[in-house]
Amino acid sequence: MATAEYTLDSVRKALVRQEDTIVFALIERAKFPFNSLTYDHNYLQIPGFCGSLVDFVVNNTEGVQAKAGRYKNPEENPFFPENLLSSLVPSYPFTQILHPGAASININKSIWKIYFHDLLPLLVASGDDGNYAQTAASDLSLLQAISKRVHYGKFVAEVKFRESPQDYEPLIRAKDTEGLMKLLTFKSVEEMVKKRVEKKAVVFGQEISLNSNDDKKGKSKFDPSVASQLYEKWVIPLTKEVQVEYLLRRLD
Amino acid sequence: MATAEYTLDSVRKALVRQEDTIVFALIERAKFPFNSLTYDHNYLQIPGFCGSLVDFVVNNTEGVQAKAGRYKNPEENPFFPENLLSSLVPSYPFTQILHPGAASININKSIWKIYFHDLLPLLVASGDDGNYAQTAASDLSLLQAISKRVHYGKFVAEVKFRESPQDYEPLIRAKDTEGLMKLLTFKSVEEMVKKRVEKKAVVFGQEISLNSNDDKKGKSKFDPSVASQLYEKWVIPLTKEVQVEYLLRRLD
Repeated sequence: MATAEYTLDSVRKALVRQEDTIVFALIERAKFPFNSLTYDHNYLQIPGFCGSLVDFVVNNTEGVQAKAGRYKNPEENPFFPENLLSSLVPSYPFTQILHPGAASININKSIWKIYFHDLLPLLVASGDDGNYAQTAASDLSLLQAISKRVHYGKFVAEVKFRESPQDYEPLIRAKDTEGLMKLLTFKSVEEMVKKRVEKKAVVFGQEISLNSNDDKKGKSKFDPSVASQLYEKWVIPLTKEVQVEYLLRRLD
Repeated sequence: MATAEYTLDSVRKALVRQEDTIVFALIERAKFPFNSLTYDHNYLQIPGFCGSLVDFVVNNTEGVQAKAGRYKNPEENPFFPENLLSSLVPSYPFTQILHPGAASININKSIWKIYFHDLLPLLVASGDDGNYAQTAASDLSLLQAISKRVHYGKFVAEVKFRESPQDYEPLIRAKDTEGLMKLLTFKSVEEMVKKRVEKKAVVFGQEISLNSNDDKKGKSKFDPSVASQLYEKWVIPLTKEVQVEYLLRRLD
């Protein structure tokens, strides 16, 4: 058994590793064109189901993964919690370091909106290749990776709080959202994260050939700036939103 | 609409792009330890279901994707075809270039055995972190990527056949499996593919930091030689097996 440890260092490492997962998932979604019928509410005609093909795939795949125990891990947060059946697997002793209030924090509805409204149009080419199920499956992988990263803010906030409760407690008691946000913001770290993510996007996105001169021609599987934009505009601010939400409940 | 074109060049490009998908999926599975309970037939107790957690996740996720139309694309082949419901989406005009006999070729049973018996033990570290649902989901992504690559042999065989039917027809009529295998084998190309895959595994597997000197220390998210072994021992031979199977039916 290797239960997760949560320390400032382990949390930092987990966040760095999750960047790779997000970049891979961006590249894999960008393999398909937009495939707008995946998102069209009038396309699917399934008795008893109302929604688009991506709604159908995400809902039902989350259902399968829920039964298999995915959401027993406090690091995971579903997009459609209202529809989930309970886990059918024996429970596993996941490390519980979060305040119980953490369970009520789920901002996947915001992530969902941003994903389809803002991110996808930046990421993918227009067009239709008929691979709607595969497109929806790769949407789900990317959504899950982004959601995990953003909600990891709960763990970030907890380890920061434990490091220096004296800095946080007065702000929490005063419900000083702005003060908490300020305390959690390190512009230079955020800049570094953005730059590292863009570098990962360049390296993992490049077309590799055996002749190493060819690699430098800069052909890429997607636009690497989309990865840093994703972090700058959405992942970093939403993670801080989760941290603040968590801290506001931390002394309840 | 951008229906797929199948030419020697487009097929080659698709195979090269699929290498990236396979390497990403290897890295993502290697993020989790072995998690043996995922594969334990005595672990799950689901009424009406007999099998391991990975059987459950793959069966049911394939079921969702089948309803969403995944297997209408002749490039896709399910692992559990016996359990699939039909697609619930309107049909899409996928390019049909394969001989109808192609539909009966599905060697996913071999891929499944090799995956769990040979590949996984090479790829992942021992241990258990409780993330069985996530492990099974990443097994499925990797299995699907390998399966797609191997069954792409049908398209490879078809475009090769169309280029020079005169070379293939006598061997097909004589059911000369060995002769066909010889005609399909280009050792130098296979060597190049293996090397390119290993290079991709090195580049995509490396831990990227902003200080570029650090990148060269060679820390990796997995053992890159596993990717080239996968190609050498299984992907390349199985793809040729699919090609031969396809060609043997080509004149029916």
